[in-house]
Amino acid sequence: MRIRLYNARLLTMESREVTEGTLIVKNDLIEYIGCDAEAPAGDFDREIDCKGNLLMPGLKDAHTHTAMTFARSLADQYSLDDWLHKAIFPLEAKLTAEHIYWFTKLGFAEYIRGGITACFDMYFQSEAVAKAAIETGMRNVFCGSVNDYGGIDRLEEEYNHFNSIDPLVSYKLGFHAEYTTSEDIMKTISDIAHKYKAPVYAHISETASEVAGCKERYGMTPAQLFDKLGLYDFGGGGFHCVWFDEKDMELYKNKGLYAVFNACSNLKLASGIAPVSKFIENNINIAIGTDGAGSNNSLSMFREMYLDTVLSNIAEEEAAAVDPFKILKAGTSGGAYCMGLDDCDLLKAGKKADIIMLDMRHPNMNPVNNIPANIIYSCDVSSVLMTMINGNILFENGEYTSLNIDEINSRCAELIKELR
Amino acid sequence: MRIRLYNARLLTMESREVTEGTLIVKNDLIEYIGCDAEAPAGDFDREIDCKGNLLMPGLKDAHTHTAMTFARSLADQYSLDDWLHKAIFPLEAKLTAEHIYWFTKLGFAEYIRGGITACFDMYFQSEAVAKAAIETGMRNVFCGSVNDYGGIDRLEEEYNHFNSIDPLVSYKLGFHAEYTTSEDIMKTISDIAHKYKAPVYAHISETASEVAGCKERYGMTPAQLFDKLGLYDFGGGGFHCVWFDEKDMELYKNKGLYAVFNACSNLKLASGIAPVSKFIENNINIAIGTDGAGSNNSLSMFREMYLDTVLSNIAEEEAAAVDPFKILKAGTSGGAYCMGLDDCDLLKAGKKADIIMLDMRHPNMNPVNNIPANIIYSCDVSSVLMTMINGNILFENGEYTSLNIDEINSRCAELIKELR
Repeated sequence: MRIRLYNARLLTMESREVTEGTLIVKNDLIEYIGCDAEAPAGDFDREIDCKGNLLMPGLKDAHTHTAMTFARSLADQYSLDDWLHKAIFPLEAKLTAEHIYWFTKLGFAEYIRGGITACFDMYFQSEAVAKAAIETGMRNVFCGSVNDYGGIDRLEEEYNHFNSIDPLVSYKLGFHAEYTTSEDIMKTISDIAHKYKAPVYAHISETASEVAGCKERYGMTPAQLFDKLGLYDFGGGGFHCVWFDEKDMELYKNKGLYAVFNACSNLKLASGIAPVSKFIENNINIAIGTDGAGSNNSLSMFREMYLDTVLSNIAEEEAAAVDPFKILKAGTSGGAYCMGLDDCDLLKAGKKADIIMLDMRHPNMNPVNNIPANIIYSCDVSSVLMTMINGNILFENGEYTSLNIDEINSRCAELIKELR
Repeated sequence: MRIRLYNARLLTMESREVTEGTLIVKNDLIEYIGCDAEAPAGDFDREIDCKGNLLMPGLKDAHTHTAMTFARSLADQYSLDDWLHKAIFPLEAKLTAEHIYWFTKLGFAEYIRGGITACFDMYFQSEAVAKAAIETGMRNVFCGSVNDYGGIDRLEEEYNHFNSIDPLVSYKLGFHAEYTTSEDIMKTISDIAHKYKAPVYAHISETASEVAGCKERYGMTPAQLFDKLGLYDFGGGGFHCVWFDEKDMELYKNKGLYAVFNACSNLKLASGIAPVSKFIENNINIAIGTDGAGSNNSLSMFREMYLDTVLSNIAEEEAAAVDPFKILKAGTSGGAYCMGLDDCDLLKAGKKADIIMLDMRHPNMNPVNNIPANIIYSCDVSSVLMTMINGNILFENGEYTSLNIDEINSRCAELIKELR
């Protein structure tokens, strides 16, 4: 399969420069990107006139719980603790593989509609998620979701299994959080990490009370505890990172760990505002995620990137506290590196064809003063014209190619009616 | 012209209830809204199967500077003061009626694409704006933009003229702000307000330094000063309202004034976060605006409504500090009342047909646990399927009916090239 996309604007994300030219996809890879004149010829299965619209790397959702679409607008009145214990955990206890399969497909539909080409999913019933991903053509990286209620006995097996079944699927070691996982279990995870020289990920410093509780239990912050337990010896990172102190930041910097921000969820649950500009000043690796739809309530990376940029202005009491291009990098290549998708980072020959097309005719992009700034400050899901993952076009002209959205909506409607 | 919209979900905004049924538009008015069975028959010029999608009142952008689309992503690095003096004022000095006409049309395109059916526009070259509005079919309410650099000599004439030329166009008395307008000019505006028993609007308490400066100059806050000068004797309101104190709030409550929030602009320019939940607790009239695209940088009421809801959680350190339905009311009927569009507030027989259709098939709306909450927490511009103003469908199936977006984009591109 060979596709020629011509007459495009190109934002490779290697720099903030936007050029005009052609991109050729061969099977799952980018074969060529550059000016029209030097593009290789030959036969193409499809030729797409991009009409001046913008091609760029797909957005990477570096922290989510995809199947939590079931909880969208279901229990909006709670803070994190009540939300988990009163609303989410009781419903989650009822979720079967069938629920996970359909609500994951609903989440995939939202990712694809919104230009998200890979997600870092922490949930359960992984077999159902993998099936949904492979059927859909979605790039899904699992993050282990071990906690005191289960998962540790399956972690190593899942790690080996889901890292071998399909090119679209991979698996990273992970656990829920310090406050839900005993020291013994964390030590076992550390042992597995050392055995495979593998990075480890978990929720971290999401709320002030989580950090206070950890200090009470262990005399140190979650980041420092994880490091002490050897969990970070082969890299990894943390989700949320709202309440990091300077020592946490130094640790993340020195170990090359990834701080993954989830601004919408933090606002919704009143958890706080992550000090994004501080992470950037300190040259810490950063990525961005939506968290689950239950606490967001959308799965829009545009909204996340926008908030990571402008909320810093309030935190720092200074306009333009953060360069929007750095946030766009976090939302694309940063997320890719965080999830171990090193070949999904840029538009470049030899890289995976995980590509989106943004609408340059949309009034929110005009006049064209600064395209990367527009993407952060102005665009939303309505800007996405096409989403391609692994060389396959999954969304185009307002329609899905691999998903039946009416069937998904109707199955999810039936399933949530039973659950509630 | 008579249009039947059937098989719809209906959110009238009289309550948070969503029903199923039919809406009939006759010329510029809603003729009928209710169940299918009782809908009047007769001939229709068009019959639209809404396929279960949602009809609701159009969003009202209650504070904007439409033609400032020219400044989108043009000078993102400044705080309010520098942004105005270094970037915006020098360029504004060059703007002709032709610039205003085209950049206003670009803004109208963005409103219509985003479900905004009326805007409260404070800028200049009003004749060019009115022309653009009438040609487009956009409902445009002018707000006087008097300041020390001009406008006071034309205010009364503009007020009379633009309140008589076309049903789509109206005009409210207004001035830029205390810090740009002398006491003498404010007194003259107050005289005009008393002559016509008319409400008055202005930017107010946008930054902490503005309030401090006003206190230094007059020994009181802008709200208290405007009240003392008689500017609020016939109602009106203020834009931004970030730094209101308790006395300001009491004044706004007692006089029935409208506080108009502009969250995106306040984040972008690091002005602060308006205490939205306090206004709601105190039963103060509220509305929502985008401000201009230069300081936003989009014109999305969805993003504004989302932020007015979730930012309160951070300010109050409490999840669900604000009921999203109250914000949705502020974004629809609240804006309408603020702008004097009392017949554009609800879906109800006899009201103006200013109606939008939102996509219920969109994954961000599913499963359908709570539609008003979904609109606030999940939807964005991609949810808008149709926008009707004054009975005319202006956006449908991804296309404009009264605007040539390619011509607008290309004219704006040429004009900004000359300006920069």
